[in-house]
This record gives sequence, structure tokens and C-alpha cells, in this order.
Amino acid sequence: MRKVAIIGVGMTEFGEHWDKSFRDLTAEAGVRAMEDANLAGTKIDALYGGTMAAGRLIGQEHITALIADHMGLNPIPATRVEAACASGGVALRQGYMAVASGIHDIVVVGGAEKMTDVPVNDAAAALGGAGDQEWELFLGATFPALYALMARRHMVEYGTTEEQMAAVAVKNHLNASMNKYAHFQSKVSIETVMKSKVVSDPLKLFDCSPISDGAAAVILAPLEMARQFTDTPVEILASAQASDTLALSSRKSLTELRATKVAARKAFEQAKLAPADIDACEVHDCFTIAEIMAVEDIGFFPKGAGGKATAEGETAIGAKIPINTSGGLKGCGHPVGATGVKQAVEIAWQLRGEAENGRQVKGAEIGMTHNVGGSGATCVIHVMKRAD
Amino acid sequence: MRKVAIIGVGMTEFGEHWDKSFRDLTAEAGVRAMEDANLAGTKIDALYGGTMAAGRLIGQEHITALIADHMGLNPIPATRVEAACASGGVALRQGYMAVASGIHDIVVVGGAEKMTDVPVNDAAAALGGAGDQEWELFLGATFPALYALMARRHMVEYGTTEEQMAAVAVKNHLNASMNKYAHFQSKVSIETVMKSKVVSDPLKLFDCSPISDGAAAVILAPLEMARQFTDTPVEILASAQASDTLALSSRKSLTELRATKVAARKAFEQAKLAPADIDACEVHDCFTIAEIMAVEDIGFFPKGAGGKATAEGETAIGAKIPINTSGGLKGCGHPVGATGVKQAVEIAWQLRGEAENGRQVKGAEIGMTHNVGGSGATCVIHVMKRAD
Repeated sequence: MRKVAIIGVGMTEFGEHWDKSFRDLTAEAGVRAMEDANLAGTKIDALYGGTMAAGRLIGQEHITALIADHMGLNPIPATRVEAACASGGVALRQGYMAVASGIHDIVVVGGAEKMTDVPVNDAAAALGGAGDQEWELFLGATFPALYALMARRHMVEYGTTEEQMAAVAVKNHLNASMNKYAHFQSKVSIETVMKSKVVSDPLKLFDCSPISDGAAAVILAPLEMARQFTDTPVEILASAQASDTLALSSRKSLTELRATKVAARKAFEQAKLAPADIDACEVHDCFTIAEIMAVEDIGFFPKGAGGKATAEGETAIGAKIPINTSGGLKGCGHPVGATGVKQAVEIAWQLRGEAENGRQVKGAEIGMTHNVGGSGATCVIHVMKRAD
Repeated sequence: MRKVAIIGVGMTEFGEHWDKSFRDLTAEAGVRAMEDANLAGTKIDALYGGTMAAGRLIGQEHITALIADHMGLNPIPATRVEAACASGGVALRQGYMAVASGIHDIVVVGGAEKMTDVPVNDAAAALGGAGDQEWELFLGATFPALYALMARRHMVEYGTTEEQMAAVAVKNHLNASMNKYAHFQSKVSIETVMKSKVVSDPLKLFDCSPISDGAAAVILAPLEMARQFTDTPVEILASAQASDTLALSSRKSLTELRATKVAARKAFEQAKLAPADIDACEVHDCFTIAEIMAVEDIGFFPKGAGGKATAEGETAIGAKIPINTSGGLKGCGHPVGATGVKQAVEIAWQLRGEAENGRQVKGAEIGMTHNVGGSGATCVIHVMKRAD
């Protein structure tokens, strides 16, 4: 297998784009990535796209054919993958495999979601399709409800507090305030989070990631070709994916995501690295409790210690392990299919030393992305390194 | 890259399965494929699944996580791909790439669609998402309407007749009557087709494939490992995919599918073969005109000669090039995501000499599948050979 590098990245601002269509968003992100890689479209051999619910959100399936068409990339193969909120990360993994295998050289991986074209309740119902429709959603268990169950159990087992969860939101809003692409640009206080409206007890509005529009793109090439396009290639050291039960009721534990643990173990094995080697990590904080579980399940902190570590600032920029420098899903926004690709964009910027406005992790050499689908039925992890 | 073989196949009966859920159908096909390969689930390294519109048809996305869960395959990577009616073929291509690359050894590829849980108009609207929602469907151009435009233009340019199109349906119903898995089990006459209700002039009811439920699965392994599982491995000689514009209005020609031509050319190059080498081919006959265009665009007949060749029996079993021995989409049924995988199942049976009830192509050694998404924006082609 060949080594694979990211040679270009780009994204749209995340937010409520009333004036832009799905087509517009994907083109904007794609063109920025192509400009970043100094690459003409004619050089691209294949396209992978991650989007979750375009069928329900914009009435359109066959979504990568649409993107290839709109970007003038025909007749290259264009393949959509879907794994709920992990769609972007899984698309990145397919692109990685296509290049690693030698089947394709230059591959563009996009992620996008246009969520504000339908009423918010319809968007929430579409998102519910990421969990178990027959055994959960049909009975009323929406996503906030499922993560609220996990949060409550984490509080019971480990003494995690609502203030510790709020600290995740405070940190991620702070990071987002330094990211011009972020949905939210303002800082929040612990008090603001704690006083916000209850969505599903103990989760409050500021514990939840927003519904956003947006797109992100990365361009992959064999590492040996990468310097034809960029002086700062980012090598993908590992790409790992794992699955777990769709319904929470089938799981042995509510306080860990098995798919995260399996994917992280495989990724560290492939990269021949350990959690302590990671300089910056984007984790899947669809809810604040999700970030706390992620930093434990990946192995940055012992089980049960994630809340305390966050509240004590250990996941801030400049501290032990900077988590979600982009602002994460909570602060940067969560256009579902775009998120996994955006994570790779942010880590590429960090490893290239190009993260702006004070959020650069000094000397970052190795980074990681952690993208989760649904309530944890899919997890995909990538480990990346600034190429020598 | 490693050589890849199909070591097991299985499918459900296609039809209206009022008593079976999406879960039931995928499990049935998967278990049959595993039994065919004498394989325990614990040996499977990854799952790829093709399904088009589960979000709209059963309210469920994240569909391969559901399958992996229901089949007890966790925590292996489970990845859904979607390319409208080509979802199954594209899933097969991703599985092929995963094995060819050396990343995974044993990979199960499934395709499924449960279409009868919603009213037929909702299913038709969901299918419309395979074309261009903004530029076609929104203006009233459903799938039958788009293919009717192609049919009319083919009639104008090449003198193709409605009776020639009807001959496709007659042949495919005949073949389906020899396939116990087929949605339709009865033969039809030219007169029946010609007198059936007009759906979108010149296409009549019997020119159209039906809305079906069903699932199909194939299991892949490196060719060098294949005989551990089966005495009759089927080697995948080529896997090629191409894209075209989503909307018909953007195309130079209405009487050919460019994606088919590009994918076929690439597939023949990779396999080092020509159309005359193919002993049996499953093509994407969502409408009768689609089969006529396919046999021309692949290169079995000159452009414009497909209708005449069909009417003269050249695509029947035992004739020049047997097309759609399974009954095709028209006769065997079209559970959208399942179709591309079912094509591979049928070709595997043909190459293993196991096609039943009189539909076996004598001495078939090389076969081909041709799976189209939407009105031709995606095409994926596989060439297969009975392994020596």
C-alpha cells in the first residue's frame, strides 16, 4: 500500500446559509481546496462525498453525481458514502483507501449538508434516522434524549457534573471565536450554559451542537507525489473505522462508545503511536457529554476523568491535549456530512502551522480526528502527521 | 493490487414483502451468501452496503450500522454507499477496492431496498431524488418522463419502434419465469406490452421496471484465499465507474449514456477483453429503452441497432449475447439498492453453471454487470470470470 497525504484543504463558513444551495456550498469548499493544492480539476481522478440526509433535507439523493456535475469533474467516479454524522470521516477513509490501493492518484473528498431548507422539526426527524428508527426514534428517543441518557449515567457512575459538561461548551465557544469559519463567533460563560433552556435533562441548549449548513473538502495524493502540489503535505498515518449496536439498549455500557475504543486502538496500532503522541485532536462533540466520553475512550484521560480534566483546562489550547481547536461541533457548527471532513481540514491547518487568530497549537506535529455516527454505531479515526 | 474473487452469493426473492422488514431482508440475503461461502460471520472483516433512499422509504439512515448490528458483525467497519439505482454496483466496487488494496480480506457486500412501506407516490418521489431535484423533478420530470424523452429521441434518430422496446420486456419476463427469485413469474406477449397503460408516452406499464422489496449479497476474498471457501470462485477481472451530468438537459446526446461508454471502455481495458468475449451480461433495464441503449453503449451492437437486435432474438439465452438472464430489472424486479448486487449474484451463478430452470447459458466463462444510477449520471461495470 502507498502512503497517502493531504495536499489541499478548504471549507465554507459554517452557519445558516439562507442564500446558498447545496450545490453552492460544495463548490465553494471544493474550489478552495483545489486552490490550496494549486490543482486543476482535470487532475482529479475520483471524488468521494459524505452527506447524511440529503434525501430528506433537500429531496436529492445521488449527491456525488450532482457534485461532480456541478464542479465539471465528469466522467470521474463519484461515490457518496453515508454513516450518519460520521459520513464525512467515512468518506475520507474511502478516499484514503482509493489512493493507498493505487487505484486512484488524486482524490477529492468532500462533506456537506444543507439543513436549513426544511423546518427544524423535519431536520430533527431526519437526524433521528442516524439512530434506530424502529427501536428508538419511533418511541420518541431523539438524539438529545439518547445522549441525555449517557450523560445521566456518566454522572451516576463517575460523579461528572453539569458544570463540567458546561466547561466543554465554554472551551469550544472560545476556540470557535478564533475561527472565522465557525458558526458561533462569541464566547460563552459557564453561567450562560447552565442557565440555558433544558433540551433533554441534564442536557441544556448550550450542551448541544447546532443545526448548520456547510461543506468542507480535502484533496489526497500519494505521499510520493505530494510535493508537486504543496510544500506542506500532511501524511495520513492511520485510518480506522469500527461499528457498534445502533440502539443504546443493546449495549453493555452507556458511558463509553465501544466503536471509539476499537477504532482508536486500531488507529494507534497502525500509526505506531499512543495518545500521548497526539498534539491536537478534533473529537465528535455533538453534545458536551460526547466530548467527555471521547477524550476518555480515545485514551487521553482515564475513564471517568474527562469531565474533571476539561473543567481544569487540560483540553485547552496550550494545555495537555488541545481538543477541538476549531470549536468542534458545538462551536464551529455541525452540518452533519461536512463535520468529519472539517475535522481533517482543521488538523491539516494545525499541522501546517496555519491555524489563525490565536488558536494555533505551537509546534503541532501529529494530529487526530474522531468522527462518530449516530449515538456511536460508527466511529472513524484518522491520525495525521506533518510530512518531513 | 491483489486479485479479488466472489466466494459466496445469496439473495431474497424480489417482490412485495409486506411481512418482512429491511432488517429481515438483509439478514436473509446475507445468511444465504454466508452459507454459500461456508463462512462464519467472525471471518468477515468489513461490510459495504448499497441502498438508495432508506431515509425516505423507512425513515432510517446509517443503514450499514443497522445491518452490521442485526447480523452480529460488530465491530467491523460497515460503510453505506449511495449512487441512486447504481448503489449496489458502487458498493461492490468499494468492496473490490478494499480487498484489492490489501486493507481487508473477507468483505461482504450487500444491497437492499424496502420500498413498499410507503405509498407508491412517495416511493416515486423518493426515486426522483436520483435525478436532478432542482432542475428536473421540481418541474415535473419523473423518471419515466426522463426515459420517455430518451426513447422518443432514439425512435427519431434510429427508427427504433415501440414493438422493439416491447421485445425487451417479453424476453426479460421469459427469463424471469425461469428464476424463482424474480418478482414476476409469468411470461408476457408483445401484445400485452403494447396494450398496457401508457405511463409516459411512448413508455407503457410493461416498459417499466416495478417497485420491489429485496436484498442481495456477495462475499469477496483475495483470489489466492478463495479456494479455502469454495470450489467455484468467480474472479472479478475489472471494476470501473464513471459519471455524467445529473440533468438530461446538460447532455450532448439523449440516445446514449456517456457514463456507460466510459465505464465500459475502462472495464474492457482493465480486463483486456472486448464485448465479443462476454458470454452473459446483466444490464440496467429500468425501462426497456434503457436496455436497448445499454447493449449499444457497451458495444454489443452498433449504435441504433439495439432495438432490432432484441426483436430478432439476438439477446436471448442461447443467442449472440444473452442479456438479463435473471429477468433484469423489468422481470426480476428492482429493489433499487439491491439491483447492482443481484446482477453480480446472477452472473456468479451463470459462471458457476448453477443458473436453474433452463436459464443457464451453456459454457459461460466470462460475464458482465452494468448498473446505472438515475438517468445515467452514474454507471458502474464489473467483468467477471470463472476462476481456473
